[in-house]
Amino acid sequence: MTAPSFRRQGILFVISAPSGTGKSTLCGNLRATPDFIYSVSCTTRSPRPGETDGADYHFLSTEQFESRIKAGEMLEYAKVHQNYYGTLLAPVKKALEEGTDVLLDIDVQGASAIRSCSDALIRSSLVDVFIMPPTIDELERRLRKRGTESEEQIRMRLDRGREEMRNWRLYRYTILSGSMEEDLTKFRAIMRAERYLSSRLTLV
Amino acid sequence: MTAPSFRRQGILFVISAPSGTGKSTLCGNLRATPDFIYSVSCTTRSPRPGETDGADYHFLSTEQFESRIKAGEMLEYAKVHQNYYGTLLAPVKKALEEGTDVLLDIDVQGASAIRSCSDALIRSSLVDVFIMPPTIDELERRLRKRGTESEEQIRMRLDRGREEMRNWRLYRYTILSGSMEEDLTKFRAIMRAERYLSSRLTLV
Repeated sequence: MTAPSFRRQGILFVISAPSGTGKSTLCGNLRATPDFIYSVSCTTRSPRPGETDGADYHFLSTEQFESRIKAGEMLEYAKVHQNYYGTLLAPVKKALEEGTDVLLDIDVQGASAIRSCSDALIRSSLVDVFIMPPTIDELERRLRKRGTESEEQIRMRLDRGREEMRNWRLYRYTILSGSMEEDLTKFRAIMRAERYLSSRLTLV
Repeated sequence: MTAPSFRRQGILFVISAPSGTGKSTLCGNLRATPDFIYSVSCTTRSPRPGETDGADYHFLSTEQFESRIKAGEMLEYAKVHQNYYGTLLAPVKKALEEGTDVLLDIDVQGASAIRSCSDALIRSSLVDVFIMPPTIDELERRLRKRGTESEEQIRMRLDRGREEMRNWRLYRYTILSGSMEEDLTKFRAIMRAERYLSSRLTLV
Protein backbone atom coordinates (compact mmCIF):
# COMPACT_ATOMS: atom_id res chain seq x y z
CA MET A 1 0.00 0.00 0.00
CA THR A 2 1.36 3.42 -0.92
CA ALA A 3 1.30 6.30 1.55
CA PRO A 4 -2.02 8.15 1.69
CA SER A 5 -1.83 11.77 0.63
CA PHE A 6 -4.38 14.51 0.42
CA ARG A 7 -5.14 17.22 -2.05
CA ARG A 8 -7.41 20.19 -1.48
CA GLN A 9 -8.61 23.40 -3.08
CA GLY A 10 -7.25 26.73 -1.84
CA ILE A 11 -8.68 28.61 1.11
CA LEU A 12 -9.69 32.27 0.90
CA PHE A 13 -8.64 33.83 4.22
CA VAL A 14 -10.30 37.18 4.83
CA ILE A 15 -9.09 39.40 7.63
CA SER A 16 -10.96 42.48 8.84
CA ALA A 17 -10.23 44.90 11.65
CA PRO A 18 -10.92 48.55 12.47
CA SER A 19 -8.18 51.02 11.42
CA GLY A 20 -5.51 51.19 14.09
CA THR A 21 -5.85 47.57 15.26
CA GLY A 22 -2.45 46.83 13.78
CA LYS A 23 -3.93 44.86 10.91
CA SER A 24 -1.47 46.27 8.35
CA THR A 25 1.51 45.20 10.47
CA LEU A 26 -0.12 41.80 11.04
CA CYS A 27 -0.69 41.33 7.31
CA GLY A 28 2.86 42.51 6.61
CA ASN A 29 4.17 39.79 8.93
CA LEU A 30 1.85 37.20 7.40
CA ARG A 31 3.10 38.08 3.93
CA ALA A 32 6.52 36.83 4.97
CA THR A 33 4.95 33.33 5.21
CA PRO A 34 5.62 31.50 1.95
CA ASP A 35 2.64 29.14 1.81
CA PHE A 36 -0.07 31.48 0.53
CA ILE A 37 -0.44 34.55 -1.62
CA TYR A 38 -1.51 37.94 -0.42
CA SER A 39 -4.13 39.57 -2.60
CA VAL A 40 -3.24 43.20 -3.26
CA SER A 41 -6.37 45.39 -3.20
CA CYS A 42 -7.17 48.21 -5.59
CA THR A 43 -7.97 51.67 -4.24
CA THR A 44 -8.55 55.21 -5.41
CA ARG A 45 -7.21 56.78 -2.21
CA SER A 46 -3.84 58.54 -2.24
CA PRO A 47 -0.77 56.52 -1.24
CA ARG A 48 0.43 57.16 2.33
CA PRO A 49 4.14 57.85 2.86
CA GLY A 50 6.08 54.64 2.24
CA GLU A 51 3.31 52.83 0.37
CA THR A 52 4.23 51.24 -2.97
CA ASP A 53 1.92 50.77 -5.96
CA GLY A 54 1.40 47.06 -6.69
CA ALA A 55 2.69 45.97 -3.26
CA ASP A 56 0.49 47.80 -0.73
CA TYR A 57 -2.31 48.61 -3.16
CA HIS A 58 -2.96 48.92 -6.84
CA PHE A 59 -3.56 52.68 -6.89
CA LEU A 60 -6.17 53.50 -9.54
CA SER A 61 -7.97 56.63 -10.68
CA THR A 62 -11.71 56.81 -9.97
CA GLU A 63 -12.32 56.42 -13.71
CA GLN A 64 -10.16 53.28 -13.95
CA PHE A 65 -11.84 51.77 -10.88
CA GLU A 66 -15.36 52.43 -12.13
CA SER A 67 -14.61 50.88 -15.52
CA ARG A 68 -13.47 47.67 -13.75
CA ILE A 69 -16.68 47.61 -11.74
CA LYS A 70 -18.71 47.96 -14.93
CA ALA A 71 -16.74 45.12 -16.58
CA GLY A 72 -17.67 42.82 -13.65
CA GLU A 73 -14.02 42.32 -12.76
CA MET A 74 -14.32 43.06 -9.02
CA LEU A 75 -14.84 40.28 -6.46
CA GLU A 76 -15.91 42.98 -4.00
CA TYR A 77 -15.61 46.72 -3.75
CA ALA A 78 -16.83 49.50 -1.49
CA LYS A 79 -16.73 53.26 -1.23
CA VAL A 80 -15.28 54.30 2.12
CA HIS A 81 -14.29 57.83 3.20
CA GLN A 82 -14.98 58.99 -0.42
CA ASN A 83 -12.59 56.40 -1.88
CA TYR A 84 -13.06 53.07 -3.62
CA TYR A 85 -11.45 49.92 -2.28
CA GLY A 86 -11.80 46.56 -4.01
CA THR A 87 -10.43 43.17 -5.04
CA LEU A 88 -10.09 41.74 -8.54
CA LEU A 89 -11.89 38.40 -8.98
CA ALA A 90 -9.70 36.66 -11.60
CA PRO A 91 -6.37 36.29 -9.70
CA VAL A 92 -8.18 35.10 -6.55
CA LYS A 93 -10.14 32.40 -8.40
CA LYS A 94 -7.07 31.24 -10.30
CA ALA A 95 -5.08 30.77 -7.09
CA LEU A 96 -7.90 28.88 -5.32
CA GLU A 97 -8.38 26.55 -8.28
CA GLU A 98 -4.65 25.76 -8.22
CA GLY A 99 -4.87 24.85 -4.51
CA THR A 100 -3.09 27.99 -3.33
CA ASP A 101 -4.41 29.81 -0.26
CA VAL A 102 -5.15 33.52 -0.57
CA LEU A 103 -5.14 36.22 2.12
CA LEU A 104 -7.46 39.19 1.67
CA ASP A 105 -7.27 42.21 3.95
CA ILE A 106 -10.68 43.86 3.57
CA ASP A 107 -13.25 45.78 5.60
CA VAL A 108 -16.58 44.66 7.04
CA GLN A 109 -18.49 45.74 3.91
CA GLY A 110 -16.09 43.82 1.64
CA ALA A 111 -16.30 40.67 3.76
CA SER A 112 -20.08 40.91 3.66
CA ALA A 113 -19.99 41.18 -0.16
CA ILE A 114 -17.83 38.04 -0.39
CA ARG A 115 -20.19 36.07 1.88
CA SER A 116 -23.01 36.78 -0.56
CA CYS A 117 -20.88 36.32 -3.70
CA SER A 118 -22.61 34.42 -6.52
CA ASP A 119 -19.45 32.37 -7.21
CA ALA A 120 -19.72 28.99 -5.41
CA LEU A 121 -15.94 28.42 -5.33
CA ILE A 122 -15.42 31.76 -3.58
CA ARG A 123 -18.13 31.09 -0.98
CA SER A 124 -16.97 27.52 -0.22
CA SER A 125 -13.34 28.68 0.14
CA LEU A 126 -14.07 31.56 2.51
CA VAL A 127 -12.64 31.64 6.04
CA ASP A 128 -13.20 35.08 7.58
CA VAL A 129 -11.45 36.38 10.67
CA PHE A 130 -12.22 39.53 12.66
CA ILE A 131 -9.56 41.21 14.78
CA MET A 132 -11.28 42.81 17.75
CA PRO A 133 -9.36 45.83 19.15
CA PRO A 134 -8.68 45.80 22.89
CA THR A 135 -10.74 49.02 23.45
CA ILE A 136 -11.91 52.07 21.49
CA ASP A 137 -9.60 54.22 23.65
CA GLU A 138 -6.63 52.10 22.64
CA LEU A 139 -7.73 52.31 19.01
CA GLU A 140 -7.81 56.13 19.27
CA ARG A 141 -4.37 56.20 20.90
CA ARG A 142 -2.90 54.10 18.08
CA LEU A 143 -4.54 56.21 15.35
CA ARG A 144 -3.14 59.43 16.90
CA LYS A 145 0.29 57.85 17.27
CA ARG A 146 0.31 57.06 13.53
CA GLY A 147 0.00 60.83 12.94
CA THR A 148 -0.99 60.58 9.28
CA GLU A 149 -4.61 61.71 9.55
CA SER A 150 -6.47 64.92 10.36
CA GLU A 151 -8.67 65.21 13.46
CA GLU A 152 -11.72 64.79 11.24
CA GLN A 153 -10.30 61.66 9.61
CA ILE A 154 -9.51 60.19 13.04
CA ARG A 155 -13.12 60.85 14.18
CA MET A 156 -14.45 59.18 11.03
CA ARG A 157 -12.23 56.11 11.55
CA LEU A 158 -13.26 55.79 15.21
CA ASP A 159 -16.97 56.04 14.35
CA ARG A 160 -16.47 53.40 11.71
CA GLY A 161 -14.42 51.24 14.11
CA ARG A 162 -17.30 51.24 16.61
CA GLU A 163 -19.70 50.20 13.85
CA GLU A 164 -17.36 47.46 12.60
CA MET A 165 -16.88 46.02 16.09
CA ARG A 166 -20.63 45.31 16.19
CA ASN A 167 -20.16 42.88 13.27
CA TRP A 168 -17.69 40.42 14.78
CA ARG A 169 -20.32 37.66 15.00
CA LEU A 170 -20.62 37.55 11.21
CA TYR A 171 -17.05 36.26 11.01
CA ARG A 172 -16.16 32.59 11.39
CA TYR A 173 -13.36 33.47 13.83
CA THR A 174 -12.79 36.38 16.20
CA ILE A 175 -9.38 37.17 17.65
CA LEU A 176 -9.25 39.51 20.62
CA SER A 177 -6.22 41.63 19.72
CA GLY A 178 -3.25 41.43 22.08
CA SER A 179 0.38 41.99 21.17
CA MET A 180 1.41 41.69 17.51
CA GLU A 181 3.09 38.33 18.28
CA GLU A 182 -0.05 37.00 19.96
CA ASP A 183 -2.27 38.05 17.07
CA LEU A 184 0.15 36.48 14.59
CA THR A 185 0.30 33.17 16.51
CA LYS A 186 -3.49 33.05 16.73
CA PHE A 187 -4.02 33.80 13.05
CA ARG A 188 -1.44 31.22 12.03
CA ALA A 189 -3.19 28.59 14.19
CA ILE A 190 -6.42 29.32 12.29
CA MET A 191 -4.64 29.04 8.93
CA ARG A 192 -3.12 25.67 9.87
CA ALA A 193 -6.27 24.20 11.40
CA GLU A 194 -8.45 25.08 8.42
CA ARG A 195 -6.09 23.08 6.23
CA TYR A 196 -6.83 19.93 8.25
CA LEU A 197 -10.63 20.12 7.96
CA SER A 198 -11.68 16.75 6.54
CA SER A 199 -14.33 18.44 4.40
CA ARG A 200 -11.54 20.19 2.45
CA LEU A 201 -9.53 17.03 1.82
CA THR A 202 -9.61 14.46 -0.96
CA LEU A 203 -7.57 11.29 -0.54
CA VAL A 204 -5.42 10.69 -3.61
CA MET B 1 -15.68 51.86 27.34
CA THR B 2 -14.20 48.87 29.12
CA ALA B 3 -12.15 46.26 27.27
CA PRO B 4 -14.26 43.63 25.51
CA SER B 5 -13.77 40.12 26.79
CA PHE B 6 -15.22 36.82 25.76
CA ARG B 7 -16.50 33.83 27.63
CA ARG B 8 -17.23 30.43 26.16
CA GLN B 9 -18.22 26.89 27.08
CA GLY B 10 -15.63 24.14 27.05
CA ILE B 11 -14.68 22.18 23.94
CA LEU B 12 -14.68 18.39 23.86
CA PHE B 13 -11.64 17.41 21.77
CA VAL B 14 -11.78 13.79 20.62
CA ILE B 15 -8.70 12.18 19.11
CA SER B 16 -8.76 8.82 17.31
CA ALA B 17 -6.03 6.89 15.55
CA PRO B 18 -5.20 3.27 14.78
CA SER B 19 -2.96 1.49 17.33
CA GLY B 20 0.67 2.22 16.56
CA THR B 21 0.10 5.71 15.12
CA GLY B 22 1.84 7.19 18.14
CA LYS B 23 -1.41 8.50 19.60
CA SER B 24 -0.49 7.55 23.17
CA THR B 25 2.79 9.51 22.95
CA LEU B 26 0.93 12.42 21.33
CA CYS B 27 -1.68 12.45 24.09
CA GLY B 28 1.07 12.16 26.68
CA ASN B 29 2.69 15.29 25.26
CA LEU B 30 -0.66 17.07 25.07
CA ARG B 31 -1.31 16.28 28.72
CA ALA B 32 1.68 18.45 29.60
CA THR B 33 -0.35 21.43 28.26
CA PRO B 34 -2.04 23.12 31.22
CA ASP B 35 -5.11 24.62 29.54
CA PHE B 36 -7.38 21.58 29.32
CA ILE B 37 -8.07 18.35 31.15
CA TYR B 38 -7.40 14.90 29.83
CA SER B 39 -10.28 12.50 30.37
CA VAL B 40 -9.01 9.19 31.68
CA SER B 41 -10.91 6.28 30.09
CA CYS B 42 -12.14 3.18 31.86
CA THR B 43 -11.15 -0.25 30.57
CA THR B 44 -11.36 -3.91 31.51
CA ARG B 45 -8.14 -4.83 29.69
CA SER B 46 -4.99 -5.65 31.66
CA PRO B 47 -2.51 -2.85 32.34
CA ARG B 48 0.56 -2.88 30.06
CA PRO B 49 3.98 -2.57 31.66
CA GLY B 50 4.37 0.98 32.97
CA GLU B 51 0.67 1.87 32.93
CA THR B 52 -0.80 3.36 36.10
CA ASP B 53 -4.39 3.02 37.31
CA GLY B 54 -6.14 6.41 37.34
CA ALA B 55 -3.52 8.03 35.09
CA ASP B 56 -3.46 5.90 31.90
CA TYR B 57 -6.82 4.23 32.49
CA HIS B 58 -9.24 3.48 35.25
CA PHE B 59 -8.80 -0.31 35.25
CA LEU B 60 -12.13 -1.94 36.11
CA SER B 61 -13.37 -5.52 36.34
CA THR B 62 -15.93 -6.60 33.73
CA GLU B 63 -18.57 -6.67 36.48
CA GLN B 64 -17.76 -3.10 37.62
CA PHE B 65 -17.82 -1.85 34.02
CA GLU B 66 -21.15 -3.47 33.20
CA SER B 67 -22.79 -2.04 36.31
CA ARG B 68 -21.74 1.46 35.22
CA ILE B 69 -23.23 0.87 31.78
CA LYS B 70 -26.51 -0.24 33.38
CA ALA B 71 -26.56 2.87 35.60
CA GLY B 72 -26.29 5.07 32.47
CA GLU B 73 -23.02 6.56 33.68
CA MET B 74 -21.03 6.06 30.44
CA LEU B 75 -20.74 8.81 27.81
CA GLU B 76 -19.58 6.11 25.39
CA TYR B 77 -18.24 2.59 25.63
CA ALA B 78 -17.30 -0.22 23.29
CA LYS B 79 -16.10 -3.80 23.42
CA VAL B 80 -12.85 -4.17 21.49
CA HIS B 81 -10.56 -7.22 21.41
CA GLN B 82 -12.80 -8.80 24.11
CA ASN B 83 -12.34 -5.83 26.44
CA TYR B 84 -14.53 -2.87 27.40
CA TYR B 85 -13.31 0.71 26.90
CA GLY B 86 -15.39 3.70 27.90
CA THR B 87 -15.72 7.25 29.25
CA LEU B 88 -17.72 8.44 32.25
CA LEU B 89 -20.24 11.17 31.38
CA ALA B 90 -20.36 13.19 34.63
CA PRO B 91 -16.76 14.54 34.82
CA VAL B 92 -16.79 15.49 31.11
CA LYS B 93 -20.08 17.44 31.39
CA LYS B 94 -18.93 19.19 34.56
CA ALA B 95 -15.71 20.40 32.90
CA LEU B 96 -17.49 21.64 29.75
CA GLU B 97 -20.08 23.54 31.80
CA GLU B 98 -17.27 25.26 33.70
CA GLY B 99 -15.64 26.36 30.42
CA THR B 100 -12.79 23.87 30.64
CA ASP B 101 -11.71 22.00 27.50
CA VAL B 102 -11.53 18.22 27.65
CA LEU B 103 -9.37 15.84 25.61
CA LEU B 104 -10.71 12.34 24.97
CA ASP B 105 -8.54 9.65 23.40
CA ILE B 106 -11.05 7.16 21.99
CA ASP B 107 -11.52 4.83 19.04
CA VAL B 108 -13.68 5.15 15.95
CA GLN B 109 -16.64 3.39 17.60
CA GLY B 110 -16.43 5.67 20.65
CA ALA B 111 -16.24 8.81 18.52
CA SER B 112 -19.28 7.63 16.57
CA ALA B 113 -21.20 7.08 19.83
CA ILE B 114 -20.41 10.65 20.96
CA ARG B 115 -21.58 12.12 17.63
CA SER B 116 -24.98 10.54 18.18
CA CYS B 117 -25.09 11.28 21.94
CA SER B 118 -28.49 12.46 23.21
CA ASP B 119 -26.86 15.20 25.33
CA ALA B 120 -26.94 18.51 23.41
CA LEU B 121 -24.03 20.03 25.36
CA ILE B 122 -21.83 17.08 24.44
CA ARG B 123 -22.76 17.23 20.76
CA SER B 124 -22.31 21.02 20.46
CA SER B 125 -18.92 20.86 22.21
CA LEU B 126 -17.47 18.08 20.08
CA VAL B 127 -14.39 18.63 17.91
CA ASP B 128 -13.13 15.29 16.59
CA VAL B 129 -9.71 14.73 15.06
CA PHE B 130 -8.45 11.65 13.21
CA ILE B 131 -4.74 10.87 13.02
CA MET B 132 -4.08 9.10 9.72
CA PRO B 133 -1.02 6.80 9.82
CA PRO B 134 1.56 7.26 7.05
CA THR B 135 1.01 3.68 5.72
CA ILE B 136 -0.22 0.29 6.96
CA ASP B 137 3.36 -1.02 6.59
CA GLU B 138 4.67 1.71 8.87
CA LEU B 139 1.86 0.93 11.33
CA GLU B 140 2.92 -2.73 11.35
CA ARG B 141 6.56 -1.79 11.86
CA ARG B 142 5.66 0.38 14.86
CA LEU B 143 3.42 -2.28 16.41
CA ARG B 144 6.19 -4.91 16.12
CA LYS B 145 8.74 -2.48 17.55
CA ARG B 146 6.53 -2.01 20.63
CA GLY B 147 6.92 -5.75 21.20
CA THR B 148 4.09 -6.05 23.73
CA GLU B 149 1.63 -8.06 21.65
CA SER B 150 1.40 -11.56 20.20
CA GLU B 151 1.39 -12.16 16.46
CA GLU B 152 -2.38 -12.70 16.62
CA GLN B 153 -2.91 -9.43 18.50
CA ILE B 154 -0.79 -7.55 15.94
CA ARG B 155 -2.89 -9.02 13.10
CA MET B 156 -6.10 -7.99 14.88
CA ARG B 157 -4.81 -4.45 15.42
CA LEU B 158 -3.73 -4.12 11.77
CA ASP B 159 -7.10 -5.35 10.50
CA ARG B 160 -8.81 -2.89 12.78
CA GLY B 161 -6.42 -0.10 11.69
CA ARG B 162 -7.37 -0.64 8.05
CA GLU B 163 -11.05 -0.48 8.99
CA GLU B 164 -10.56 2.68 11.10
CA MET B 165 -8.65 4.45 8.33
CA ARG B 166 -11.76 4.19 6.15
CA ASN B 167 -13.60 6.44 8.63
CA TRP B 168 -11.43 9.56 8.53
CA ARG B 169 -14.10 11.56 6.71
CA LEU B 170 -16.47 11.31 9.69
CA TYR B 171 -14.05 13.45 11.71
CA ARG B 172 -14.04 17.23 11.60
CA TYR B 173 -10.25 17.28 11.16
CA THR B 174 -7.77 14.79 9.69
CA ILE B 175 -4.06 15.02 10.40
CA LEU B 176 -1.75 13.02 8.17
CA SER B 177 0.72 11.70 10.74
CA GLY B 178 4.34 12.82 10.37
CA SER B 179 6.89 13.15 13.15
CA MET B 180 5.64 13.42 16.74
CA GLU B 181 6.55 17.15 16.77
CA GLU B 182 4.62 17.76 13.54
CA ASP B 183 1.52 15.94 14.83
CA LEU B 184 1.72 17.89 18.09
CA THR B 185 2.04 21.25 16.32
CA LYS B 186 -0.90 20.43 14.06
CA PHE B 187 -3.13 19.28 16.90
CA ARG B 188 -2.29 22.36 18.98
CA ALA B 189 -3.18 24.60 16.02
CA ILE B 190 -6.60 22.94 15.89
CA MET B 191 -7.10 23.41 19.64
CA ARG B 192 -6.22 27.11 19.41
CA ALA B 193 -8.27 27.83 16.31
CA GLU B 194 -11.40 26.19 17.68
CA ARG B 195 -11.22 28.57 20.65
CA TYR B 196 -11.52 31.58 18.31
CA LEU B 197 -14.66 30.39 16.51
CA SER B 198 -17.13 33.26 16.86
CA SER B 199 -19.98 30.80 17.34
CA ARG B 200 -18.38 29.67 20.61
CA LEU B 201 -17.91 33.17 21.99
CA THR B 202 -20.14 35.41 24.08
CA LEU B 203 -19.11 39.03 24.57
CA VAL B 204 -19.21 39.92 28.28
